[in-house]
Amino acid sequence: MSIFAFLAAAAASPAPATPALSPGEIVAAAPVSDWTPISAEDLLVMDLAPDAAGKARRVVIQLLPDPFSQGWVGNVRTLAATHWWDGLSVYRVQDNWVAQWGDGEGEDRLKAKPLPAGLARVPQERYVLRPEGPERSATHEELDTWLATIEGTHGAWHALTDKGAAIKDTDPYADETFFYRGWPLAASRKGPSAWPVHCYASIGVARDEPPDTGTGAELYAVIGHAPRQLDRNLAVIGRVIEGISYLSSLPRGAAPMGVYSDPAARTPILSVHSAAEVPDLPAYEYLSTESPSFRRYADASANHREPFYVQPAGGIDICNLKVPVRRRE
Amino acid sequence: MSIFAFLAAAAASPAPATPALSPGEIVAAAPVSDWTPISAEDLLVMDLAPDAAGKARRVVIQLLPDPFSQGWVGNVRTLAATHWWDGLSVYRVQDNWVAQWGDGEGEDRLKAKPLPAGLARVPQERYVLRPEGPERSATHEELDTWLATIEGTHGAWHALTDKGAAIKDTDPYADETFFYRGWPLAASRKGPSAWPVHCYASIGVARDEPPDTGTGAELYAVIGHAPRQLDRNLAVIGRVIEGISYLSSLPRGAAPMGVYSDPAARTPILSVHSAAEVPDLPAYEYLSTESPSFRRYADASANHREPFYVQPAGGIDICNLKVPVRRRE
Repeated sequence: MSIFAFLAAAAASPAPATPALSPGEIVAAAPVSDWTPISAEDLLVMDLAPDAAGKARRVVIQLLPDPFSQGWVGNVRTLAATHWWDGLSVYRVQDNWVAQWGDGEGEDRLKAKPLPAGLARVPQERYVLRPEGPERSATHEELDTWLATIEGTHGAWHALTDKGAAIKDTDPYADETFFYRGWPLAASRKGPSAWPVHCYASIGVARDEPPDTGTGAELYAVIGHAPRQLDRNLAVIGRVIEGISYLSSLPRGAAPMGVYSDPAARTPILSVHSAAEVPDLPAYEYLSTESPSFRRYADASANHREPFYVQPAGGIDICNLKVPVRRRE
Repeated sequence: MSIFAFLAAAAASPAPATPALSPGEIVAAAPVSDWTPISAEDLLVMDLAPDAAGKARRVVIQLLPDPFSQGWVGNVRTLAATHWWDGLSVYRVQDNWVAQWGDGEGEDRLKAKPLPAGLARVPQERYVLRPEGPERSATHEELDTWLATIEGTHGAWHALTDKGAAIKDTDPYADETFFYRGWPLAASRKGPSAWPVHCYASIGVARDEPPDTGTGAELYAVIGHAPRQLDRNLAVIGRVIEGISYLSSLPRGAAPMGVYSDPAARTPILSVHSAAEVPDLPAYEYLSTESPSFRRYADASANHREPFYVQPAGGIDICNLKVPVRRRE
């Protein structure tokens, strides 16, 4: 039975006695057991200079877990540990695209800030995760069998794909989309392969022309519609879990690609440190993407039944289903 | 042959002698004949108060063409003609969601600004376009036959759907997505029906609970990932074609739904007038979505082959394929 047929049947049923819950209400009602703590070891804190009114601007970043993008994630940990970003800036903000930070003088070899020792040079094959052996075109079943071997999947690969209730098995960019330990991923039968996707607030590694893959020193956060065409072309290393608006509401740069023509327009970075160095940082948790509450949240997001809605969509794209993250009580 | 099979074949071919063009390069090279003027009658100009540095902030709005959302579009024309928005404000900015403007005191009947006479009350059935007769579940062929009867389609409905080369026939929210006279639309076999979609910079009509459909006095512009769940639930009436960053970079409101707690934080609207009342306004044009250049642009956007890309996506979603709009020389 298609999703649309299901919707027609639902519309013919009598109205429920109590209004259906919104996705936000489902999240608010989720039991504590459905939330998963985010390890402080996976958090970075970027403090931007205060705004014109003197208000502090703190951006909290969660790093992507093993086994995805770990070469770049390791570099980012090294860069934070050596305080490399302290005193640098957000030097590029392009509307409906990205805000980018790092060394605004990096293009000029005479002015560029030296990188710390020990950064890995990661090959572009690492943009995706692949099983051992030569590339091939796998069946859907073979793809699933491989995905299920990845440690930590807990059989959740299908929670929100074709075997789940909420998401139509349609994505223009991949054969499957799903969540893994709280992260949106995509997979292709070609390879087969799986990769983290670019959604709003995702953080990726800027680079020059291939085969350069970037070190992780220059990072961007997505501040517009998900640029999924960047998937498998640049490394996603994490996401902003708090403070994205301090990046998304910055003035756009006037030069090509949103670079600020005037260096004075850049937003100074006071520091980017690991959470361990920030004693006042709260703890964070995400709604486990393997939990019953997340399944209900996904279903309600794809099929809004609360009174405000007239026509549930009957589907949702992976980037529109934002994984709830909050401060831990 | 699937898109992914096609990509595998392409990868095995020798590299082309000259680098493939990027989508932007294709647009820049498009002949004048592939561009379509936007009638000044379909443009509104919203001048916000200058920013803190005294810089003017002009937002140019294009209204949706017949036969979509015309009840609300007519109201918006009346509101602009009577200068209703002049002196009001942008009073709500919610991150990755919308910037909303109109009467910030509208919730308070004693303070609300009276609406002009002659506004239509549009029924919610008008969120979509439907053929005459009872609702039914059409076949794909029947859907296409109906769409082809709509004046001005010029047989272009399929340019970018399953019969086109660029876009995989996959959309989580609809049975088909396509472009109509420069606008992104979606359609369902259920009904059958067709509707304008919510993409970045789309403008919609805020409303209260159903069956209210809004007058058009309170408008929002999308400033984040496309909220396609709003399709068929609120009326899309146009889009911002210039100046969206003056809305997307505004500070986010701290109260629920991004409303500014302090009315002083609102951004004043100096005026919203029809283009006919703005003598210094340039002319605008869009890359005809029925043109050969647009087809090439769409293909290159779905399959980036320029040197920066390692792995073309093999597909694209309707909101990621932005219709190029520029000032007319």
